[in-house]
Amino acid sequence: MNLHDKRTPLSVTTGPIGKSRKVYSAPAGRPDIRVPFREIPLDPSCGEPPLRVYDQSGPYGCDAFTPDLSAGLPAARPWLSTRAGLETYAGREVKPEDNGFAEGDRLVPPCPAERKLFRAAGAEPVTQLEFARAGIVTEEMIYVAHRENLCRERALDVAKERIADGESFGADIQEFITPEFVRDEIARGRAIIPANINHPELEPVVIGRNFLVKVNANIGNSAVTSSVAEEVEKMVWASRWGADTVMDLSTGRNIHNIRDWIIRNASVPIGTVPIYQALEKVGGDALKLDWEVFKDTLIEQAEQGVDYFTIHAGVRLAYVPLTASRVTGIVSRGGSIMARWCLSKHRESFLYERFDEICDIMRKYDVSFSLGDGLRPGCNADANDAAQFAELETLGELTKIAWDKGCQVMIEGPGHVPMHKIKANMDKQLKACGEAPFYTLGPLVTDIAPGYDHITSGIGAAMIGWFGTAMLCYVTPKEHLGLPDRDDVKTGVITYRIAAHAADLAKGHPAARERDDAMSRARFDFRWTDQFEIGLDPDTAREYHDETMPKEAHKVAHFCSMCGPKFCSMQITQDLRKEAAEIAAKGMAEKAEEFIEKGAEIYVRE
Amino acid sequence: MNLHDKRTPLSVTTGPIGKSRKVYSAPAGRPDIRVPFREIPLDPSCGEPPLRVYDQSGPYGCDAFTPDLSAGLPAARPWLSTRAGLETYAGREVKPEDNGFAEGDRLVPPCPAERKLFRAAGAEPVTQLEFARAGIVTEEMIYVAHRENLCRERALDVAKERIADGESFGADIQEFITPEFVRDEIARGRAIIPANINHPELEPVVIGRNFLVKVNANIGNSAVTSSVAEEVEKMVWASRWGADTVMDLSTGRNIHNIRDWIIRNASVPIGTVPIYQALEKVGGDALKLDWEVFKDTLIEQAEQGVDYFTIHAGVRLAYVPLTASRVTGIVSRGGSIMARWCLSKHRESFLYERFDEICDIMRKYDVSFSLGDGLRPGCNADANDAAQFAELETLGELTKIAWDKGCQVMIEGPGHVPMHKIKANMDKQLKACGEAPFYTLGPLVTDIAPGYDHITSGIGAAMIGWFGTAMLCYVTPKEHLGLPDRDDVKTGVITYRIAAHAADLAKGHPAARERDDAMSRARFDFRWTDQFEIGLDPDTAREYHDETMPKEAHKVAHFCSMCGPKFCSMQITQDLRKEAAEIAAKGMAEKAEEFIEKGAEIYVRE
Repeated sequence: MNLHDKRTPLSVTTGPIGKSRKVYSAPAGRPDIRVPFREIPLDPSCGEPPLRVYDQSGPYGCDAFTPDLSAGLPAARPWLSTRAGLETYAGREVKPEDNGFAEGDRLVPPCPAERKLFRAAGAEPVTQLEFARAGIVTEEMIYVAHRENLCRERALDVAKERIADGESFGADIQEFITPEFVRDEIARGRAIIPANINHPELEPVVIGRNFLVKVNANIGNSAVTSSVAEEVEKMVWASRWGADTVMDLSTGRNIHNIRDWIIRNASVPIGTVPIYQALEKVGGDALKLDWEVFKDTLIEQAEQGVDYFTIHAGVRLAYVPLTASRVTGIVSRGGSIMARWCLSKHRESFLYERFDEICDIMRKYDVSFSLGDGLRPGCNADANDAAQFAELETLGELTKIAWDKGCQVMIEGPGHVPMHKIKANMDKQLKACGEAPFYTLGPLVTDIAPGYDHITSGIGAAMIGWFGTAMLCYVTPKEHLGLPDRDDVKTGVITYRIAAHAADLAKGHPAARERDDAMSRARFDFRWTDQFEIGLDPDTAREYHDETMPKEAHKVAHFCSMCGPKFCSMQITQDLRKEAAEIAAKGMAEKAEEFIEKGAEIYVRE
Repeated sequence: MNLHDKRTPLSVTTGPIGKSRKVYSAPAGRPDIRVPFREIPLDPSCGEPPLRVYDQSGPYGCDAFTPDLSAGLPAARPWLSTRAGLETYAGREVKPEDNGFAEGDRLVPPCPAERKLFRAAGAEPVTQLEFARAGIVTEEMIYVAHRENLCRERALDVAKERIADGESFGADIQEFITPEFVRDEIARGRAIIPANINHPELEPVVIGRNFLVKVNANIGNSAVTSSVAEEVEKMVWASRWGADTVMDLSTGRNIHNIRDWIIRNASVPIGTVPIYQALEKVGGDALKLDWEVFKDTLIEQAEQGVDYFTIHAGVRLAYVPLTASRVTGIVSRGGSIMARWCLSKHRESFLYERFDEICDIMRKYDVSFSLGDGLRPGCNADANDAAQFAELETLGELTKIAWDKGCQVMIEGPGHVPMHKIKANMDKQLKACGEAPFYTLGPLVTDIAPGYDHITSGIGAAMIGWFGTAMLCYVTPKEHLGLPDRDDVKTGVITYRIAAHAADLAKGHPAARERDDAMSRARFDFRWTDQFEIGLDPDTAREYHDETMPKEAHKVAHFCSMCGPKFCSMQITQDLRKEAAEIAAKGMAEKAEEFIEKGAEIYVRE
């Protein structure tokens, strides 16, 4: 890929992962709602049906999809165009500052994909929260219910037992997800479906503690490097490996147009931090920021179809001094900008003072709030301090205002937190923010491993996911050091899929263990190809295996490369079963027979 | 490196890590006890002394050390040669079966390094446990006390506070480690110093819940691939990156002689699983195993200087049927071998029946027990089942027998365990085994990520380390797929150092946070080089940084590659401090002044 080609997104990765097949399944009675899954075919010898797994890859993951980036993706939510309560309108003109005054050769062209522009026409329900409160089950709710269930049908008989076997810390894990349950969770504010009415390409995703744990991947150019081709492909690439949402954190020139390309080609929800672009528009000087430029940016991005906005409205003037004794001060970009603004003007920020108006704008497009933690700790030493928790209380107050305005809300969380202080974050968030979904970055459980912060943070992510975080924001190996490349994005996403899945397992989600158990059976049967395919990353698993055992025959060999042919313990256990059966057939002394009888029973396969 | 050169270990990696310097420090009054550390010099601008960190690299980590593998390492425990209670003797003859009947060109020559052979002469104390119970503080105890303290002197004033701030789940975290505390912990069986009297090259390490969490790395050839050069270098390489002990799990030909080369050149404790070699000696047929061949192998390896043996004596006949309903049966190699033996003979294993005699042999050389968990779960579905916990109870009984015989003991643990079932393992182990140190493999918190099992297990390892595990056995990215290469070993070790350190932090170890805080200050000051050097892997951190920002000038630049020059939040916070000071200097309206006065105080650096 040419890093310097800023004009044309040339190509993106397509095709299924490994030998899996993308399938669409419609909930009973709703053939218009096509919900995507991946099905992993297993070796016929095992007699198991294909394993159905959650799929974030969008149309790109299909066998025969040829993307036309200029046209954008087909609508995954065709019902939007006829939904009541919406009006079409001309929309805001794109201004030179939206693209950082880039012009001529340096201007990335806008994405030519055409879409009708919608906004709320009046007081009728527009947001998923408004629908939910009105008792209306939307297509999006039906969609996500079906999506969450996976192969939960298959696990229905053991669902109760698995839920009881888990430890969900008070989450309300369901044996089976109904659209009505989704509606109820959204109405209570415990879940959101970030889905801007101007993002019809979106395949809806539910984010909430009583659903599968989700993962966000950040992409974005920066002043130092990047291109359109790279950013669109990063989004496709991240969702291919399992990012449920993608945040576009671009800064610098062309961000409006790059965002256009991304959203028109995104099947996952897209989040942004509008203050970054607002700051660009005023030449990077935080003191020149004001409500007008911010408001204009909100409308600009809402019209493009951004699904959630990070808004750092919790950074209050009085909290800035609380960061005084910190080792690393304020590390959130948005937090720093707002702290600087507040301190210099000696007043509350326009984000806080105009919060009502922000809500009114976001409601019109059903842009969800991701209330930013501008005062999150930047190191373990600063974790759980007064500044962080004071802001969290404010985020709780703002949540209630946003809910009153009909807006969906999630809350961002840290950051850097040692293991023993993670649960306090979760518990405090649930309490302060009325159980609004928590969306955490990591947290990193130690600061001493630059180059490995996907791991330091993956540990914290798994734990906080277990404790109740609804979505985990990934961290790549390049964190603190540089910009992630393609491999880093994949590593980050897979690490976070591990964390999310480990959390689902620990919470007792009934369908989660199906995949682990399918893997374990494949291991016991030496079905190597199935092991690769069931895994999160078939390519890497196959490659690692082939390094030691390159011959195709080894893929069915009854031994693995760790122990060699004579030693493998799984092989020995299999032999044991056989042996026990043979001994039993021959007959033995009474006591031995008694044992072998049990033994035979033990080791005979069903 | 030539993978096929089985004759000569050609070279091993030497020299310090990054810009750090290996130093030796002697406890007060004992200049003969030279305890190794690494000191990381920091940029003069910060005014901080060099950061002292734990160092496992042995003499190889020194600036000017030229290894002579044929001569072996110099003695790190010179006092052994004059210790009372020991006798020298001729020792067992090496037999052809010790090396799998390899001969001629296929026989790896023995390591020519000469050592006097010792064993206990009689009933006088020989093991660290016997010394400890007799109230005698050994040189090894003084050594590890000094080693554990690191820069704890520096943190003495905050030690109480840090311990109180941690959550150690009942561990007895010390403000400062004294030799007497070590003695007491060993006497109670709560800690061990695995240190065979025939391994004078060893730099002593203490393993126990009230000390820093340790990491083991496995190496070993197998029937499929490997060479001497590779194995010795793997050991040096693993300890370089932070393995506290190394297990040699070799099978196949030449294992006696390869082990010789490894031990004579190892500054870290070496563990083995003697049943593997015993099985080799009987041609791989578990049913031909008996006490005589096993006993012979124990003596053979004890004389070579192996520091701890994994003994699967807890696999009792009656427990084998308990694995009946498992998804993956028995996955421990040693466990499978013993289960097969028990089942076929319909009797308890010779490991269980002859446990007393095993203790008598191991005591003579102070080989520590690592009581193997032969029935550990091989998948999440099988975690914490009756088979696993029944064996654990038996390990507890055996612990008491070994203690009575004067032997040091640690207990091996799982394996594959979902997050919510990890703590039960730790709690049960502490109770069943009288607080003998727990030594766990992972555990892996999900089964679905082959290729990433260093991460699935690193999550579990950090948690169980926090809960009380004394040593974590690493898992590499190749787990379940193939044999780890050099890069895999490094990745595995670093992942587990992260887990161990995260556990230390969470437990409230007073000195642990020094390194995190040094890193955080370096981040806040934009001291890039210091950030690389303080990290666990300076090479990778520097490489990642240089990919985005290759110029040397950027290493002192006041911005990083993630945000670029205008946006960096740390830069903004620094500007804030400066700005506040300037505004304060100019004077302002009363209320603003009030704030700025505080603000100025906040942001002025000490």
